[in-house]
Amino acid sequence: MIRIFVTGGTFDKTYDEIRGGLSFGDTHLPEMLRLGRSRVEVSVRTLMMIDSLEMTEADRELVVRNCQQCDESRIVVTHGTDTMVETAAALARGVAGKTIVLTGAMIPYAFGSSDGLFNLGSALSFAQTLPPGVYIAMNGQHFAWDTVRKNRQTGVFEPI
Amino acid sequence: MIRIFVTGGTFDKTYDEIRGGLSFGDTHLPEMLRLGRSRVEVSVRTLMMIDSLEMTEADRELVVRNCQQCDESRIVVTHGTDTMVETAAALARGVAGKTIVLTGAMIPYAFGSSDGLFNLGSALSFAQTLPPGVYIAMNGQHFAWDTVRKNRQTGVFEPI
Amino acid sequence: MIRIFVTGGTFDKTYDEIRGGLSFGDTHLPEMLRLGRSRVEVSVRTLMMIDSLEMTEADRELVVRNCQQCDESRIVVTHGTDTMVETAAALARGVAGKTIVLTGAMIPYAFGSSDGLFNLGSALSFAQTLPPGVYIAMNGQHFAWDTVRKNRQTGVFEPI
Amino acid sequence: MIRIFVTGGTFDKTYDEIRGGLSFGDTHLPEMLRLGRSRVEVSVRTLMMIDSLEMTEADRELVVRNCQQCDESRIVVTHGTDTMVETAAALARGVAGKTIVLTGAMIPYAFGSSDGLFNLGSALSFAQTLPPGVYIAMNGQHFAWDTVRKNRQTGVFEPI
Repeated sequence: MIRIFVTGGTFDKTYDEIRGGLSFGDTHLPEMLRLGRSRVEVSVRTLMMIDSLEMTEADRELVVRNCQQCDESRIVVTHGTDTMVETAAALARGVAGKTIVLTGAMIPYAFGSSDGLFNLGSALSFAQTLPPGVYIAMNGQHFAWDTVRKNRQTGVFEPI
Repeated sequence: MIRIFVTGGTFDKTYDEIRGGLSFGDTHLPEMLRLGRSRVEVSVRTLMMIDSLEMTEADRELVVRNCQQCDESRIVVTHGTDTMVETAAALARGVAGKTIVLTGAMIPYAFGSSDGLFNLGSALSFAQTLPPGVYIAMNGQHFAWDTVRKNRQTGVFEPI
Repeated sequence: MIRIFVTGGTFDKTYDEIRGGLSFGDTHLPEMLRLGRSRVEVSVRTLMMIDSLEMTEADRELVVRNCQQCDESRIVVTHGTDTMVETAAALARGVAGKTIVLTGAMIPYAFGSSDGLFNLGSALSFAQTLPPGVYIAMNGQHFAWDTVRKNRQTGVFEPI
Repeated sequence: MIRIFVTGGTFDKTYDEIRGGLSFGDTHLPEMLRLGRSRVEVSVRTLMMIDSLEMTEADRELVVRNCQQCDESRIVVTHGTDTMVETAAALARGVAGKTIVLTGAMIPYAFGSSDGLFNLGSALSFAQTLPPGVYIAMNGQHFAWDTVRKNRQTGVFEPI
C-alpha cells in the first residue's frame, strides 16, 4: 500500500472559465490513476491545494507530520516544482525509515499535453523499489533530495 | 543509458483514416518521451511493428538476440499484452545479467485516453531500479516474468 | 430545436480494450455537445450504431421514416462516411420541406485527434441556416446531396 | 474564400512552463484547421495576440480597418469573449456589406477540453451562409451583434 499526499502544484492547476485564469479545484489524482489503469494499492489524501511558491513553513510542517504519522512506509507527495527541494529537505530532517518520493509536473494535467501522467507512473514505481530515503522523481529520473536543484531558466531538475 | 526496443502492440496502434481501421505506422515512442519530458538517456530501436498475437518464434528470437547483444544492461521492451508473458519467458531463458522490463498498453497512445504514458514512466523507472531479471510492468505494478499472467476476460495482469 | 439522429459511423467508434479492436458502444454525442459547450436546443436519438458499409436498405428506410415523422424541421444525422451519399439520396427522395444535414468524421472522437467536434459544430450551424434540402457537411464545407461524392483514395468529399 | 483574423483571446492562450502561468505564443488556428480536416479555403492573418480585456480603441480600429480593406466579403474574427460584443459593435459601425462572424472559446484550445474546435467549425459555417452583417457565434449559436451580451457570472452569451 502506497500513501499519496496531494499538495497542489502545476500538476493540479485547472482553467477557470469564468475568471479566465488558472486556479485549483479538486485534485486530478484519482482520474489520473484511473486513466493510467493503475492497480497499485493507494490511499490518497489532499493536504492542501496551493502553488508551491506560496507554501509556508507551517504548510511544510503539515506535510512532514503526515508523512511521519501515516501507517504506510512508502509515500508519494505531489508538489509544485518551485519549492519541491525545500519540502524534500524538511522531510529528510523530519522523517526516518520511509521511502518518500516527491513528484510534480511542468504542465497541468488538465492540459492535454501533460507530463503529469508520465511522472505519476514513474513516482509510484520508484516508491515501490527505492530504499528508505527522500527522493525527487521528475522527467523519468530520480534524485536523492540533497543532490538536485531546479534550474529556473530551463525548468529542469539537475544534479548538483 | 537505457535501451528501448519497440515491437508494436496496442501501444503503437493508430487509426487508418482511409481504411477505417487500426494499423501500425511509425512508433509513438519518441513523441511520448517528449510529452513526458523524459530526461532519461535512452536509445530507441524498432525491431518490428506487429500485434503480439502474430508474433512468431522467429520474431521472439530476434527480440532475445537484440537484448543479448546490445551494450546496455537495462532494457525496456514495448510489446502487445496478449503474448507479453511468452516473450518474457523467452527472454528469461536467453538473456542473463540484465534488467529487462516489458511494458505495453490496453489503449493505443493515439487515443487520448491511453495508459501508455503512465506505463512508460513506470517501466523506465523500474528498469533503473530493479536487479537483473525479466519483469512485466503494467498498471503501475511489476511482476517477475514467471509470476504473472494476463487475464483475457478482464484485460488485467494478475499474479499466479 | 434541432433533432439529431445518430446512426454510428467513425464518429462513434471506440476502442475495445478486451478484444483489442474497434467497436461501437453508446454514442459520444452528448459528451461532445457538453465539451463544445453547445447551447443549441437539441433532442438526440440513436437509431442504430453501425458501420455505414453495413447499412441495409431497411436501415436506410428507418432513417428516412424518422426524419419524416419527427416534429422538427431541422435535422442533423451522424453517419459513417462510406455510404453517407446513399443515405442522403434516400432522404432526398423520401423527405420534403426539411433541412437535413448529414455529417460524420474521418477519425473517431474517442481518439484525441478527431475532426468530429469540428464537424459537429459545423453541421449544427448549417442546419440552422440552410433552406430546406438534404446536405452533406464535412471538412467545414456543405454540399447539396446530389453534387458530392466521397473519394475513397483520399478520404475527402469532393464536388461532382 | 474566407478571411480569418486572429486577435488572441482564450482561444489561443497557452501554458508557459517556465513562468507557470498563461501566455500567448503563436496562434493555434492552422493546427486547429488541420485537426478539423477543414477544406474551407481560408487565408489567416494574426492582427494581435492579446487578452480582449486589454484591447484598446486603437486595437479595435485596426480590426475594423482590416475587415474593411480585405478583398474577402466573408470574415471570421477570433476574439476574447470579454469584449467581443464591443468589437462587434465597432465592426457594425465601420464595415458594410460583409458577413463578419466573431468567435472565441471559454477554454484554451491547448487544454484538451476546449470548445474552440467546435466553435471554429460553427463560425466558418455561419460565415458561409449568413447574409451580410456582424454576428457573434458561440456555443453553436449565432446572434446579430446588437442582440447579445456575455453574462459574466455564467460565462454564457445570451440574447438581450
